[in-house]
Amino acid sequence: RRARPVREVLFFPSRPCCIEALLAEAAEPGAPARPCPCPLPSGDTALSRLVRRLLSARRSLDLCLFSFSCPQLARAVQLLHRRGVRVRLVTDAQYMGLHGSQIGRLRHAGIQVRHDQHSGYMHHKFAIVDRRMLITGSLNWTTQAIQSNRENVLVVEDAEYVKAFQDEFERIWEEYNPANYRFF
Amino acid sequence: RRARPVREVLFFPSRPCCIEALLAEAAEPGAPARPCPCPLPSGDTALSRLVRRLLSARRSLDLCLFSFSCPQLARAVQLLHRRGVRVRLVTDAQYMGLHGSQIGRLRHAGIQVRHDQHSGYMHHKFAIVDRRMLITGSLNWTTQAIQSNRENVLVVEDAEYVKAFQDEFERIWEEYNPANYRFF
Repeated sequence: RRARPVREVLFFPSRPCCIEALLAEAAEPGAPARPCPCPLPSGDTALSRLVRRLLSARRSLDLCLFSFSCPQLARAVQLLHRRGVRVRLVTDAQYMGLHGSQIGRLRHAGIQVRHDQHSGYMHHKFAIVDRRMLITGSLNWTTQAIQSNRENVLVVEDAEYVKAFQDEFERIWEEYNPANYRFF
Repeated sequence: RRARPVREVLFFPSRPCCIEALLAEAAEPGAPARPCPCPLPSGDTALSRLVRRLLSARRSLDLCLFSFSCPQLARAVQLLHRRGVRVRLVTDAQYMGLHGSQIGRLRHAGIQVRHDQHSGYMHHKFAIVDRRMLITGSLNWTTQAIQSNRENVLVVEDAEYVKAFQDEFERIWEEYNPANYRFF
C-alpha cells in the first residue's frame, strides 16, 4: 500500500498519445521495451495518467460508463481481464449499440456487461479500482471526449467516497441483472 | 466556518420535489413560511440537497455547465445573483441555445455568461461555492437528468481538489473572454 492516498485531478482535452509502452509493461512487467512504430508521442498526458491508474488494478475493476467507444481504454480493460482482474461493466442500453462502441468487443472477450432497460440514461462515468480507488468525472470514454472536449476526472482514494460509489455500483449491478428483465 | 469539511455524494434520479420553501428561506431568512400550493412533496431529496449547497453561497458562485435547462436550479442561481453573490457561468456554445435552455434567462437577469467557440464540447458540470466547496459529477443541470437518469454529484470541501477546479475555471473564463473571439 502507498503511504499517501492518491488525490489527482485530470483535465481534458488530452494530447493524443501512444499508450503501447504502458500496455506492454502491464502485460509483461519487466519485458524489454519494443519501440512502437506509430507516429504519436508517448509521454505524460491526461490519457496516459488515466490508463496508468486503471492498469494499477490487481483484483477488481468495476466500470459504470454511459458511453465507451475509446479503443485505447478498451484495450487496457481487456488486458486487465486477461490478467485475471475481475472486470464488471455497467453501461447504457441506448449508447452501447452505437457505431464505434467497444461494448460488443469487451463482451466477446468474456467480460461481464450489464445495462439498464429504462428510458432514462445510465449516465454515470466512473471506475473503481480494487474497491479502493474511485475514478469519476464528466468524461465519457470516447476518443472525441478525450481529445476534443473540456472534461474533468477526479482520482480519489478515500474510503468514504469510494464506499458510496461502490454501494451504488452494487445496487445497479443487481438491478440490471438479466434475471430481472421484464421483457415488456 | 464549519468544524468538519463537507463530504457528500448525491445520486440521481431524484424524486421530484418542491424547493419553494428553500428558495423562500434563502430570499428572506426567518420570514414566516408560506405553504406552496404545488402538488409536489418537499423533503429531503438529492435535488433539495444540491439546492441547499448552492444556496449556501455568500460571496461567489462559479459555474461550468455543459447544459443548463432546469428551471428550479436557474431560480436558485438567480436568487444568489440578486442577493449580491458574484455569479460567473461558463457553458457550451452548442447547447446554450437549445430549447429549454436557461442561459438566456440568466443573462437577461444580469449574470455574466461566457461560452466556448470550439467544435469540442465544454462538457464540465461543476460549481464552486465561495471558492471553497466543489460540486461536481456526471449531472447536467436538466430536469430530465435530475428526474430520470442515473447520475452522481460529489460535494467536496477540500482545498487541493477545489484549487485544481478553481484554476481550471479561471483558465476557461479567460480563454472564453469575448475580447478574444476570432470571428472566423
